[in-house]
Amino acid sequence: MSAPAHNDLLLRALRRQPTERTPVWMMRQAGRYLPEYMEIRRQAGDFMALCTNPELACEVTMQPLRRFPLDAAILFSDILTVPDAMGLGLYFEAGEGPRFRRPIRCQADIDALAVVDPEAELGYVIEAVRRIRRELDGAVPLIGFSGSPWTVATYMVEGGSSRTYGQIKRLVYDDPEAMHCLLDKVAKVTADYLNAQIAAGAQAVMIFDTWGSVLTPAAYREFSLDYMSRIIGQLQTGTGEARIPTILFTKGAGSRLAELALTGCDALGVDWTTDLAEARRLTADRVALQGNLDPSVLYSSPDAIRQEVATVLESFGAGEGHVFNLGHGIAPDVDPGHAAAMVAAVHELSPAFHVPD
Amino acid sequence: MSAPAHNDLLLRALRRQPTERTPVWMMRQAGRYLPEYMEIRRQAGDFMALCTNPELACEVTMQPLRRFPLDAAILFSDILTVPDAMGLGLYFEAGEGPRFRRPIRCQADIDALAVVDPEAELGYVIEAVRRIRRELDGAVPLIGFSGSPWTVATYMVEGGSSRTYGQIKRLVYDDPEAMHCLLDKVAKVTADYLNAQIAAGAQAVMIFDTWGSVLTPAAYREFSLDYMSRIIGQLQTGTGEARIPTILFTKGAGSRLAELALTGCDALGVDWTTDLAEARRLTADRVALQGNLDPSVLYSSPDAIRQEVATVLESFGAGEGHVFNLGHGIAPDVDPGHAAAMVAAVHELSPAFHVPD
Repeated sequence: MSAPAHNDLLLRALRRQPTERTPVWMMRQAGRYLPEYMEIRRQAGDFMALCTNPELACEVTMQPLRRFPLDAAILFSDILTVPDAMGLGLYFEAGEGPRFRRPIRCQADIDALAVVDPEAELGYVIEAVRRIRRELDGAVPLIGFSGSPWTVATYMVEGGSSRTYGQIKRLVYDDPEAMHCLLDKVAKVTADYLNAQIAAGAQAVMIFDTWGSVLTPAAYREFSLDYMSRIIGQLQTGTGEARIPTILFTKGAGSRLAELALTGCDALGVDWTTDLAEARRLTADRVALQGNLDPSVLYSSPDAIRQEVATVLESFGAGEGHVFNLGHGIAPDVDPGHAAAMVAAVHELSPAFHVPD
Repeated sequence: MSAPAHNDLLLRALRRQPTERTPVWMMRQAGRYLPEYMEIRRQAGDFMALCTNPELACEVTMQPLRRFPLDAAILFSDILTVPDAMGLGLYFEAGEGPRFRRPIRCQADIDALAVVDPEAELGYVIEAVRRIRRELDGAVPLIGFSGSPWTVATYMVEGGSSRTYGQIKRLVYDDPEAMHCLLDKVAKVTADYLNAQIAAGAQAVMIFDTWGSVLTPAAYREFSLDYMSRIIGQLQTGTGEARIPTILFTKGAGSRLAELALTGCDALGVDWTTDLAEARRLTADRVALQGNLDPSVLYSSPDAIRQEVATVLESFGAGEGHVFNLGHGIAPDVDPGHAAAMVAAVHELSPAFHVPD
């Protein structure tokens, strides 16, 4: 067994227990804005070569922790490793983003999809989790993650990124049964995948529902929210003090936060288009909240960044259950010094929002 | 003077007066999904050549009315004609969308911006409005439009479309005074521009705030909403029965609809991510609502389209003040027959939601 976390601010905040300051990490903190990441990626050859190499995935996971006093590590991987393992053939085309060689086109494609065992087919991720836990040696907790079944399915059906989601929406409206059949398979593998990450040492898990908000409220409930709820019910999170907290993040969730808070998750990620005060009201303080600095604030000066960090902290206000983060992943063209200014501002300004022991 | 509209369902619905059925039109109804549009565009040479030719702009405005029993025409133009007239040099690159030759880079660029007279510098649009009114001969009302100052400014500062809005967000956070100076100039020209369209015959006007929702709630209020309110206050809409209704549309507005309803507008456009029932609740029935079929529903079968039209009508429910529309512009790859199915379903199903005279 790995040692317990020395800095457990994140886990306490996710459980809404008292902390002396607000913990902070950044979505996509191991990423292209860091020159040391770009160097490793060049060595690896391409993005998938980096993802599938546990040693290098561990190395890039650790990089942001060496630069900034962050309160969490997040596994370096991609939400599309799951459909890749299910046989769709993930690749990345320069400037085009992710693509699948064998996208889902019809019911027969869905029927043919393998409900794989992540321990076997995604062993490289599970091995990376073990390595990162050893390397962290308890310094900060490690967050594991997956995509939501809906978000992963958009790529599987569209064959890559999309602007209109024409193919998957056709399935939603013309053949909802086929859509559910697909989501059911993805949800099964996703639950097993997150459980394998937990067994390997992940101390919290997050589900990224990047594209849930392209659906109408009713379709969101049926095709995205329900599958995330089901996965949460299947996670082996344990109980009591050692319980593994779960975080759900639907980008652009807005008023859907109220429903998301009832899924059984411990925390919700909130993007910058909803004030945290409003998010607290909508969720009736049922869950912890994670967010929500506009990632584009990092293009402005350190003074402006500090001011906007203060605004986010004030919006959440006094009390427990806030994990500071960006409202979406850090952009590749951000100056790492500006990320440092954000983290420093959280360290400096957040103790005022917490009651000393 | 042109003849009054024979079919004034749109104007009555926008004023929340009784109608025998729900009026229907489609955002971007004059557009690339129509082969007859593509033919005219080929003749014109490029998009700007089409925009600046009143005869051809009139022709493409009329095209969808010949195909479908729509209840409104909307001027064929582009929100970026305004900054083009202000000297930025608009052009369109194949596959790249709109670009400016001389984007706004600094305070000096903002100082140099001309607050032009739209009657002179955008005379081709005003002439198109006059032509379309003559050609319509009162059949249905004509809607004029502009972009919101914030949305227009994003293109002026970014130089085109953007994913992160890094340049304009830097201005928002580091130099809000410069940002306000820019928005002030754009708002002045926009108000004059809409007033010129009204004087030339536009019977309703709509302001498109496509990118307002990329701002935090506080920044949205300060940099987008306030300027739309100001413009509405400056419009020469007249009074009483002949009053020109105004429509505001912020894509992804969600919970911001409550504030938008207090701007003095007559109606709000609503995208498909908020149920109309919720939008009615948020706006306390202060304004009419326009929307909100998911545009991607048009990729599905006519049967599914009819079902989703019913869902939208039921969500608004009984009562006056609903204009049926898509929740965003119709996509270029939609089958025109599917648009016809949507319009037919509104004609067939909507009378049940209105009380006969």
